[in-house]
Amino acid sequence: MPHHLLVKGGTVVNDDRSFRADVHCEDGIIKQVGLDLAVPEGTEVVDATGKLVLPGGIDTHTHFQLPFMGTVSVDDFFIGTQAAVAGGTTMIMDFAIGMAGESPLAAVEKWRGWADEKVVCDYSLHCAITWWDESVARDMAVIAGEKGINSFKVFMAYKNVFQLPDDKIVHVLKHCKSIGAIMQVHAENGDIIDEQSRRMIDLGITGPEGHVMCRPEEVEAEATNRAIMLANQLNSPLYVVHVMSKSAADRISEARRRGCVVFGEPIAAGLGTTGHHCWHHDWRHAAAYVMGPPLRNDDSTPGYLMHMLANGDLQATGTDNCTFNADQKALGKDDFRKIPNGVNGVEDRMSIIWEKGVHAGILSPSQFVAATSSNAARIFNMYPRKGRIEAGSDADLVVWDAEASRTISAKTHHHAVDFNIFEGMTVHGVPLVTISRGKVVYAHGKLMTVKGAGRFIPRGAYSDFVYEKIRVRDRANLPVGVKREPYSGPVIKL
Amino acid sequence: MPHHLLVKGGTVVNDDRSFRADVHCEDGIIKQVGLDLAVPEGTEVVDATGKLVLPGGIDTHTHFQLPFMGTVSVDDFFIGTQAAVAGGTTMIMDFAIGMAGESPLAAVEKWRGWADEKVVCDYSLHCAITWWDESVARDMAVIAGEKGINSFKVFMAYKNVFQLPDDKIVHVLKHCKSIGAIMQVHAENGDIIDEQSRRMIDLGITGPEGHVMCRPEEVEAEATNRAIMLANQLNSPLYVVHVMSKSAADRISEARRRGCVVFGEPIAAGLGTTGHHCWHHDWRHAAAYVMGPPLRNDDSTPGYLMHMLANGDLQATGTDNCTFNADQKALGKDDFRKIPNGVNGVEDRMSIIWEKGVHAGILSPSQFVAATSSNAARIFNMYPRKGRIEAGSDADLVVWDAEASRTISAKTHHHAVDFNIFEGMTVHGVPLVTISRGKVVYAHGKLMTVKGAGRFIPRGAYSDFVYEKIRVRDRANLPVGVKREPYSGPVIKL
Amino acid sequence: MPHHLLVKGGTVVNDDRSFRADVHCEDGIIKQVGLDLAVPEGTEVVDATGKLVLPGGIDTHTHFQLPFMGTVSVDDFFIGTQAAVAGGTTMIMDFAIGMAGESPLAAVEKWRGWADEKVVCDYSLHCAITWWDESVARDMAVIAGEKGINSFKVFMAYKNVFQLPDDKIVHVLKHCKSIGAIMQVHAENGDIIDEQSRRMIDLGITGPEGHVMCRPEEVEAEATNRAIMLANQLNSPLYVVHVMSKSAADRISEARRRGCVVFGEPIAAGLGTTGHHCWHHDWRHAAAYVMGPPLRNDDSTPGYLMHMLANGDLQATGTDNCTFNADQKALGKDDFRKIPNGVNGVEDRMSIIWEKGVHAGILSPSQFVAATSSNAARIFNMYPRKGRIEAGSDADLVVWDAEASRTISAKTHHHAVDFNIFEGMTVHGVPLVTISRGKVVYAHGKLMTVKGAGRFIPRGAYSDFVYEKIRVRDRANLPVGVKREPYSGPVIKL
Amino acid sequence: MPHHLLVKGGTVVNDDRSFRADVHCEDGIIKQVGLDLAVPEGTEVVDATGKLVLPGGIDTHTHFQLPFMGTVSVDDFFIGTQAAVAGGTTMIMDFAIGMAGESPLAAVEKWRGWADEKVVCDYSLHCAITWWDESVARDMAVIAGEKGINSFKVFMAYKNVFQLPDDKIVHVLKHCKSIGAIMQVHAENGDIIDEQSRRMIDLGITGPEGHVMCRPEEVEAEATNRAIMLANQLNSPLYVVHVMSKSAADRISEARRRGCVVFGEPIAAGLGTTGHHCWHHDWRHAAAYVMGPPLRNDDSTPGYLMHMLANGDLQATGTDNCTFNADQKALGKDDFRKIPNGVNGVEDRMSIIWEKGVHAGILSPSQFVAATSSNAARIFNMYPRKGRIEAGSDADLVVWDAEASRTISAKTHHHAVDFNIFEGMTVHGVPLVTISRGKVVYAHGKLMTVKGAGRFIPRGAYSDFVYEKIRVRDRANLPVGVKREPYSGPVIKL
Repeated sequence: MPHHLLVKGGTVVNDDRSFRADVHCEDGIIKQVGLDLAVPEGTEVVDATGKLVLPGGIDTHTHFQLPFMGTVSVDDFFIGTQAAVAGGTTMIMDFAIGMAGESPLAAVEKWRGWADEKVVCDYSLHCAITWWDESVARDMAVIAGEKGINSFKVFMAYKNVFQLPDDKIVHVLKHCKSIGAIMQVHAENGDIIDEQSRRMIDLGITGPEGHVMCRPEEVEAEATNRAIMLANQLNSPLYVVHVMSKSAADRISEARRRGCVVFGEPIAAGLGTTGHHCWHHDWRHAAAYVMGPPLRNDDSTPGYLMHMLANGDLQATGTDNCTFNADQKALGKDDFRKIPNGVNGVEDRMSIIWEKGVHAGILSPSQFVAATSSNAARIFNMYPRKGRIEAGSDADLVVWDAEASRTISAKTHHHAVDFNIFEGMTVHGVPLVTISRGKVVYAHGKLMTVKGAGRFIPRGAYSDFVYEKIRVRDRANLPVGVKREPYSGPVIKL
Repeated sequence: MPHHLLVKGGTVVNDDRSFRADVHCEDGIIKQVGLDLAVPEGTEVVDATGKLVLPGGIDTHTHFQLPFMGTVSVDDFFIGTQAAVAGGTTMIMDFAIGMAGESPLAAVEKWRGWADEKVVCDYSLHCAITWWDESVARDMAVIAGEKGINSFKVFMAYKNVFQLPDDKIVHVLKHCKSIGAIMQVHAENGDIIDEQSRRMIDLGITGPEGHVMCRPEEVEAEATNRAIMLANQLNSPLYVVHVMSKSAADRISEARRRGCVVFGEPIAAGLGTTGHHCWHHDWRHAAAYVMGPPLRNDDSTPGYLMHMLANGDLQATGTDNCTFNADQKALGKDDFRKIPNGVNGVEDRMSIIWEKGVHAGILSPSQFVAATSSNAARIFNMYPRKGRIEAGSDADLVVWDAEASRTISAKTHHHAVDFNIFEGMTVHGVPLVTISRGKVVYAHGKLMTVKGAGRFIPRGAYSDFVYEKIRVRDRANLPVGVKREPYSGPVIKL
Repeated sequence: MPHHLLVKGGTVVNDDRSFRADVHCEDGIIKQVGLDLAVPEGTEVVDATGKLVLPGGIDTHTHFQLPFMGTVSVDDFFIGTQAAVAGGTTMIMDFAIGMAGESPLAAVEKWRGWADEKVVCDYSLHCAITWWDESVARDMAVIAGEKGINSFKVFMAYKNVFQLPDDKIVHVLKHCKSIGAIMQVHAENGDIIDEQSRRMIDLGITGPEGHVMCRPEEVEAEATNRAIMLANQLNSPLYVVHVMSKSAADRISEARRRGCVVFGEPIAAGLGTTGHHCWHHDWRHAAAYVMGPPLRNDDSTPGYLMHMLANGDLQATGTDNCTFNADQKALGKDDFRKIPNGVNGVEDRMSIIWEKGVHAGILSPSQFVAATSSNAARIFNMYPRKGRIEAGSDADLVVWDAEASRTISAKTHHHAVDFNIFEGMTVHGVPLVTISRGKVVYAHGKLMTVKGAGRFIPRGAYSDFVYEKIRVRDRANLPVGVKREPYSGPVIKL
Repeated sequence: MPHHLLVKGGTVVNDDRSFRADVHCEDGIIKQVGLDLAVPEGTEVVDATGKLVLPGGIDTHTHFQLPFMGTVSVDDFFIGTQAAVAGGTTMIMDFAIGMAGESPLAAVEKWRGWADEKVVCDYSLHCAITWWDESVARDMAVIAGEKGINSFKVFMAYKNVFQLPDDKIVHVLKHCKSIGAIMQVHAENGDIIDEQSRRMIDLGITGPEGHVMCRPEEVEAEATNRAIMLANQLNSPLYVVHVMSKSAADRISEARRRGCVVFGEPIAAGLGTTGHHCWHHDWRHAAAYVMGPPLRNDDSTPGYLMHMLANGDLQATGTDNCTFNADQKALGKDDFRKIPNGVNGVEDRMSIIWEKGVHAGILSPSQFVAATSSNAARIFNMYPRKGRIEAGSDADLVVWDAEASRTISAKTHHHAVDFNIFEGMTVHGVPLVTISRGKVVYAHGKLMTVKGAGRFIPRGAYSDFVYEKIRVRDRANLPVGVKREPYSGPVIKL
């Protein structure tokens, strides 16, 4: 028997407008959006009177149960997705990361194995490319063609680990274009970080503040700029993950104004807090904020990035959720280079962006929806299945109370980790009810999730949102040579 | 009996995505969008196989049969709207302009009288505010509240004619906000134009090139910047008409990045040609390009503005279609100050923007739809009735051939005017069939219009697209004073 | 008998280089600069071993004993110039300000009368233009031609008091150019300040913070931009006094990049502190920082302006020294609009700029000299008589200890005012000995000044530094019309 | 017997001001500057009545008799320096370039050997670093410490030939700072050029236009930005040679605004012509303009760079004079990659910059002197010996006729090469008399040079102009760590 659910009395907010409407879902799909809808008897009703009804959030960037720097991030796919739905996020996108020499395809299968049995909401994967040869190219073609993954991430930092030099990045960009995928990039100059992190240690600076000081903003902006240039030269699309600084965002914004097909993703941490915490007198507190690229110790950064989101200079938002407990962070207690990088975010992203965006007068509610859901769906080719409330779309919804507030704390969060980087922050904008595939998975503070109930969402190649611009550019910008008479004069003998 | 029409076989392009779908219209309203639609027998079928199906264009800025500088523009509401639909535009927005001392409400009624009996497609009006007192304020309230017009235009140029000083503009901005309207602005510094135009004559420069030289780009950029500041101080929305220069567009773009609620409208002329023509050796040719603000004699301007459109720095597009024949332009044959200002555009706008935008690799088709239709509908509060192809919307559609091309000429255009500023230009992107309110009004080169068949589209106050941001800003930015003990020390005696 | 003085052992810093050299002065003029100089017996020796020897500072902007808002600023020309030399400044430039309807020439004579008998170091005057008719124009010609004053200041703020509208500013700019002078401008939009200050009171905000909130940064940037445009249209030079904000400075910097002849003057207050003080819980403290344009409540402003100075985007530095005691500021205790505007600065300017500039790693010592002395001398046509250490120049020198520091306090300063806006700040860079016209006027904490010993420095018209660029631009940019056959077609009959 | 020379009747233009003065030189050194100078009988007199007297030009960038791409540039040190003085340039700076594996010190000696016997005016050398190991570091120390060369150039382009990767550039930057030198950089991303030049050939584009199209502007801007970041991270000074594009110049300008110690050098070709010539229908003509980075096919570039010079965003000017005849260029007649890169410029630089700078209304005469002479002298540590007219400086002078004009042509130029990229251009600003070391070497169209009469000018390390800023920044920006209690909690076992 089909399952019917009616979200009643709310104001639907899509990214192009908002309007009073009820939402009727059948078996996980939105069937009708409107007023005075006819629904079958026995339909489950979710009351949204006076509230907003939003497309469920999409977190474009998590690292659940990631093996990293010798340990494993503590939010696994079960706990992590529970935290997600508790915060109004109904889909996460994680990364399959093979080491240099390992098959990317094998990595994808490994991650699928980890995730499928645990996720409580839908998810997808990106795939990291950490080395390059012909077998990697073949794997990529299979992953994009058969495995439903059209986004591949490279690293310009982590020298001697993940870092690819420019000529290898050129190969990845060309190949991505040939298979209809989009390259993602961690943009920091690994060579100078290598140099400067050693300098910090030489200066006797071993604490978390050293992590921030050895990779200043311009180190990120430089690599961002370089990646954009390489991608633009090849007219291959680019997606910059975790844009952490004003100047890196500026590079993206300027490039878009020149026509480059580049997207930028700020994260909850960068929009909601700053790197000043890395100077905290308590080492554990300071270490909790260590991530790469670092949170900036510049108070104007979060608001600046938010304005960029509001104006479409940046598009999607993730979290880089990659959580480590105190005893794991403590691996770097004498040397910041050994602190596992990562922060939380998947649960609080939506509220942080509402608070610092809408409540702060920077985002309109529609822009909030674009930034937290619709744009991600478009870029990664899941739109309008995800990211929009209309008949035919997946029934991933949040009933949102714009007026309510809550105070974030590690004591009450749904993460496995023992620290919350937003501890004590009061945020307006609270998810009352989260609906995944037409089922209520979170309501008024209570989880109603089922382990493994989420689905892997395959994403086709050649996302129209990305490639329609690539195509018009390829056509318009094809180089044309000059037809001339051959040179007929003398040629010097060498 | 209801009239049914099916547009079959095309690819529907909305501003958020494109997809293969047929469009079924009933009595002027879109009823279904999809494949394999059930339609009644006798349904009229428009073949769109292999073509694009776009929301009909909205020209935000025309001046049909405008009394100006002692004469009247030659495209009236009949000829003008015929030219519009021949070019794929299904709605135009004109301006009711009373002189200083005249009632704006009376002007609106006068323009309604002129237009209603002539228009062959839907239209709306903006209303100019050329002076200020309490009666004007009262008229504005009635116009916005009862007459379906929520946009009021002021002039910073035309000294001693239309020009309002800053303190009057402050009044208009405050009043617009209080009645849920948006102020539009012609942004040029009239004081310096007055000075510099006299200087040109003193230097013996009486030709059309003098018109351009006495109001350079920075004259426009300055006023644009000033209007933005005034509007932002009052958090009242602003719409800058005919953005003609790179630097003026930059002011808008930068302001939006700071959160200002400002919109910018480039026009077909500015996107498709340049002011170099004003230096043409043939006076009549040169004079044909005289408009204000002037077309810039900078070849990089059109492409720059187009990139701005692509990135949402500018939003809507108009034409300032205000056409004068040779004998009218000739009023200024000995003094450029007497040349009636105005150019054509309403027919060619869509093709020009496709050619210089999509064909040139700058706009994607979706961005084209946003720039030519959807954004205008949102700003001026007609969305999704206009500007979108979905069930429930008005059946204003264009079947668009992206591959075909045509050559623009005064010999073949549908205007009354004897000159076309795009003469000889070959443009890709051709409207095959134009549908207004579910009826074919233009097909394969032939007009099938009915005089007076268009409707005035009333537009409510408080456009959500505009005011949702105004509201979050008002709430977030309310000034708060410091609570302190009163000063208790000595005070000097004056 | 001629007076000889030798500054021995120091490193001379000019704005183009620094070098080890002694400086020999005779009767107020520098006679020799070099090593192993022959000097007559009995020459007074000032030991500068291991110290820097700088051109004495030039404060481009003071208001000593200014009648303003019903009271008079407490630092008169005697106390004010004593404070100046105690801080390493050997020349100040004040403003003769007549009210609307008063003769500017009479104002100049009045100020000369006040200053001549009191100044302990050299000085000059600028002249304010607060209204406009032919008599004002005649006065300006006399002042520039015969009175040694080539700089005239207009106000875009202070509505109904000093404010000039754009068309009057156009007159001043044109006239300045015709007499070889430079127009200075107080750049704020007075119309919006008038509106917004009333709004603050309506909101119940009567304290000093209201002064800041009703004239935000963009209000200054707008007027700055407008003044630049007007000046550039006429190719008349412009000098923006008290540049207080990043965005205003940006307008100047961008304009210079386009070739505009515009100069900008940040002041000590804006380089050394912020408007956050206006939110201080103690009213008197908060009121002490009230000036116009306001100090910005943005911590990044001072450093930003300093970088602008370092790069020549801004040129000269003043203080707007205009000091009022608590009982005077208290005139506005219930309404910030009545607080006399003004802060101190003339004594601390040099140290503040050294601390926030050189010590902070932003300015090189040579750039410090440019910013505090040489550029002012060039712009205002006193170079190399002032602003440079070379044979033939006036012997205005400071022996500067770059390593020493001092703590600023109202308890120890040489001002008449009962408050110091830099209270408690420790600054590196201390003037050890100040020499005015070859005489030691301050040494190691002790003043040795003589009332009236300073001289009025007449400044000729057509400063080469300013006008050489005006001339090349006038010549290159002369508008040229098109030669064409007359239009011979029909002309419409009106 | 000492040689005396008097330049009489002219207006001396230094970069800080201009003034009527005669210049008396004795044995190659300026002895007096002033009016009514006492000079010995028999003093040679150069009449400069009504003309300007400028410091002789310094060309910061030549490649005389350079072995390159299998052939040798045809202007050798004799012909090249003759062309220089014929154009008003009295000093050139060339590059000693060893191949990878060769000793830089040996290269310096080789170049000294070539130049010393041929130069007709003074010269200096920079030294290229094309590979890296400890021996290179040692050579650099000797070169800077003992050989009078404090500038070392690296290449980010020319993959597999000269190109250094980022980590090697880091070594060079650190080492330069430790020996008081400045690193110069050829800034283009060699990896993408390698890729794109192959693509051009694959597309069948073999002509000179392919050279331009495969290394667009952003390829230069990217590398410029990267070099700046690396240098800034290490606070080591940077000098960008041949800045060819607006966006590369922007990177430098912006960096300087942030405090970076970076200098930029546009060249005569980039200031005076464009890359449109590479599309010329005549292959030989097109090939003549091939250089790297390419001349931009953007007409707004030359003026933009000139404004940058005017405002001190860029500082010094060279030519990259590296001339090849038709038969040499023809090595690449079937493949643009084999065309020897290089253009002329050393003779015409001064006139080109006067024409496009001063005559065009962008540069004042003082700024012209800064851009063509004084700034170079300061950066490369020869000031005020070179670059200034004052007592004690080298008597390198030009009598300059600002009103005269000449037409540039290969038929009349003093180069060995058979083509002039400025052919047919009429330039205002003509050198009447050129004086090198107090001797007239060129007068009224006639060369009076002596082969080998020029001298190598040794330049010391730690140029004050460069390093005073480095020092204040090092001191102010030393990283400081947080003092905290050690972490005492549990640490995970790996």
